[in-house]
Amino acid sequence: MKAHEIARLADGILVGDGDVEITHAADIGTANADSLSFSTSLEHVETLAGCVIVKQGSTQTAKAIVEVSDPRLAFSIACEILHPPKRSHAIHPTAVIADSAKIGDRATIGPNAVIGEEVAVGDDCYIAANVVIENGCTVGDRVTLHAGVVVGTDGFGFARDKDRYVKFPQIGTVVIENDVEVGANSTIDRGALGETRIGEGTKIDNLVQIAHNVSIGKRVVIAAQTGISGSTVIEDDCVIGGQVGMGDHARVQSGAVIGSQAGVLPGKIVRPGVWWGTPVQPLDEYKRQNAMVKGLARLRDEVKELKKRLS
Amino acid sequence: MKAHEIARLADGILVGDGDVEITHAADIGTANADSLSFSTSLEHVETLAGCVIVKQGSTQTAKAIVEVSDPRLAFSIACEILHPPKRSHAIHPTAVIADSAKIGDRATIGPNAVIGEEVAVGDDCYIAANVVIENGCTVGDRVTLHAGVVVGTDGFGFARDKDRYVKFPQIGTVVIENDVEVGANSTIDRGALGETRIGEGTKIDNLVQIAHNVSIGKRVVIAAQTGISGSTVIEDDCVIGGQVGMGDHARVQSGAVIGSQAGVLPGKIVRPGVWWGTPVQPLDEYKRQNAMVKGLARLRDEVKELKKRLS
Amino acid sequence: MKAHEIARLADGILVGDGDVEITHAADIGTANADSLSFSTSLEHVETLAGCVIVKQGSTQTAKAIVEVSDPRLAFSIACEILHPPKRSHAIHPTAVIADSAKIGDRATIGPNAVIGEEVAVGDDCYIAANVVIENGCTVGDRVTLHAGVVVGTDGFGFARDKDRYVKFPQIGTVVIENDVEVGANSTIDRGALGETRIGEGTKIDNLVQIAHNVSIGKRVVIAAQTGISGSTVIEDDCVIGGQVGMGDHARVQSGAVIGSQAGVLPGKIVRPGVWWGTPVQPLDEYKRQNAMVKGLARLRDEVKELKKRLS
Repeated sequence: MKAHEIARLADGILVGDGDVEITHAADIGTANADSLSFSTSLEHVETLAGCVIVKQGSTQTAKAIVEVSDPRLAFSIACEILHPPKRSHAIHPTAVIADSAKIGDRATIGPNAVIGEEVAVGDDCYIAANVVIENGCTVGDRVTLHAGVVVGTDGFGFARDKDRYVKFPQIGTVVIENDVEVGANSTIDRGALGETRIGEGTKIDNLVQIAHNVSIGKRVVIAAQTGISGSTVIEDDCVIGGQVGMGDHARVQSGAVIGSQAGVLPGKIVRPGVWWGTPVQPLDEYKRQNAMVKGLARLRDEVKELKKRLS
Repeated sequence: MKAHEIARLADGILVGDGDVEITHAADIGTANADSLSFSTSLEHVETLAGCVIVKQGSTQTAKAIVEVSDPRLAFSIACEILHPPKRSHAIHPTAVIADSAKIGDRATIGPNAVIGEEVAVGDDCYIAANVVIENGCTVGDRVTLHAGVVVGTDGFGFARDKDRYVKFPQIGTVVIENDVEVGANSTIDRGALGETRIGEGTKIDNLVQIAHNVSIGKRVVIAAQTGISGSTVIEDDCVIGGQVGMGDHARVQSGAVIGSQAGVLPGKIVRPGVWWGTPVQPLDEYKRQNAMVKGLARLRDEVKELKKRLS
Repeated sequence: MKAHEIARLADGILVGDGDVEITHAADIGTANADSLSFSTSLEHVETLAGCVIVKQGSTQTAKAIVEVSDPRLAFSIACEILHPPKRSHAIHPTAVIADSAKIGDRATIGPNAVIGEEVAVGDDCYIAANVVIENGCTVGDRVTLHAGVVVGTDGFGFARDKDRYVKFPQIGTVVIENDVEVGANSTIDRGALGETRIGEGTKIDNLVQIAHNVSIGKRVVIAAQTGISGSTVIEDDCVIGGQVGMGDHARVQSGAVIGSQAGVLPGKIVRPGVWWGTPVQPLDEYKRQNAMVKGLARLRDEVKELKKRLS
């Protein structure tokens, strides 16, 4: 790949030698003459990289410089070509695929993956080792399920009957739309009666729990170890931090950003904006309140002082 | 299944046509003429369901109505018959079962499950795909272990010796009693010297961590991503929310309810009642304290005003 | 094993009959005449144990007593000999090992484990059932990966491009140094461009998430369900509780101790000492602040009283 191709791909301005040949991507600090790298700083960073993608106005120098508005994005786009994912486009012989399952074209199914009855997996999917997709679930095109992901086990619903719990029926399904990625060992439960849905282009990190009947919109990002309780709705383009907990029947409106470790109470409606803490509140309020708590010692001293003056 | 059979099963009062034929369960909003549905509202809900289970006094109408005191429970009981779990009652050929393991009658063992030496699995168990039960653990009757569950790995115990950690022996076992259900990718460690025990009828959600020597009573409910540290005891009939963390050697007394994301300190005794927050406190106290923190700005303003008046 | 051998191994003082024969380790409460047990109390505990390891100055009696400075450590050291881990030192026939992977001497690879291309696994490793080690990762000697561990899946990095997320390249690797232990179903992501590293002798519990480019030092202890975000550094000899969340690019300095459920903000530097809460603060400050919040009702009453007196 040559520098001028990267400039074209990234819709950037080439400065320097467009014929610089690039073989791989690397961090700017460890790059060599064959490396493509990037910098988000406007200042020069010492580097051996043959080609560096930078922000317009940067003073960076290299054999080839590509100026763009978003260097990290441009670098990612170049890497889609430079480092395409290694895929076998084959079903590993140890995978267990039910006869009634339908697997799309060019799908890669890893060792020991288990695909249940009536499952549909779309084209160009990557289903990693030890993934389990239970009966009746639907997976779109270009979906990546990393190792150990479990899709479609029973949701967690029980009704108390004197001295035992009776299982509430968990007979729904899971629909994963196109271009979704789910991280290692995450779990997505089937709907109790209806469906659990993960919208197009949504990205989910490792060890995330998605309960029955949850509906997640398009292009939602959910970081590791977050848990979403039953029937909660996350609308399009939300960003959810790690270790967030959401109660059931909550609704996160389109464009909301929820900080890590936050807690959303059952039934809560989270409006667009940045949210933090347990129970979640707008970030500004959270910060104000946090500062106030930190100032409590002073407040207490002031009250003491007032009492003394009054006596 | 006919409406009058459902009324009999659910110990309810039939109103309307007892011969209405039902083939499946459905949400009241998506039901059709062959559906059994339920409503917890006393008001009428528009539905096409052939038979609806309702609370006594409800104004709901349908071809057949079954009046009960707990519609969700009655619906669950009817679904035990209407939608029995699909089971092969077979050991999948890819499962790896140690010669010395004993598997009960009618057990279903899924693909790639691994059952270690001297393990005992009871009758009518459902051991899903990729479950691992390590050497020497005991699983009762009618136990469900969902995909990816790991039972009986080493607990996490080490003793510091100058420049290394020495493993504290993890040579105990795990006992899972009858009618327990454990969610996908949850982990239950073996006892260090004694046993880790999960009591009869207890239900555990996905991605839950149960450490060595924990003892969980009967009919306990534990939601997703909760972690219980070593030697902690949870007595019968407790309800534990999601993402709760419990320190070691704590004791949760029978009937306690602990809200999601709560934190129980090591050694803490949690009495019956509803608990919340980190460290856990009674819900009422938690709410009072939360309200007080939210009122801090006003309190500070009052102190300012007092200072001004005193000057 | 005889009592005098234990005394020698543990560098302790033998009191009583050095020829007492011990066959296994047991809790002091359930021990019998063939048991080795230990007590951290200075007072006598009723026991049937043939040999008890105690603190110097203890009034404990038994056929054989071994006095040491750290009984739990001495007991652990004796158990390394008394209860060596049961290992097959074999590759299970159902394990899937890439042709280009290198497996060290005396390694035990469990059923259905998956070892990718160009992976190197050192000597005397224990790779449990269903573990996945993705392409190109390196595992040192005497490493234990418990069931369901996933090493080397893609980190979670994306760049937003109008109406889609473009994957930031995840083409780095994971290096696990010697004597590391990782608990069941934990996940360790590969570096985006560089490496993710787990230092020598570090012990990680179940369901822990280690993100791309994280660097963990030597002899670090991390309890269950903790999550470490991208590029964060944990230096040697830190102790991290359970359910802790760390933002990206944080640094935990050598010797720091972080309490369970704590939250470390992105970029935060955590100095040596004991830390607690979200966001983390020194334990003393946390306690002071907690007490202050608990005293808010009184403070409010005092302000009320002052207002009354001023009127």
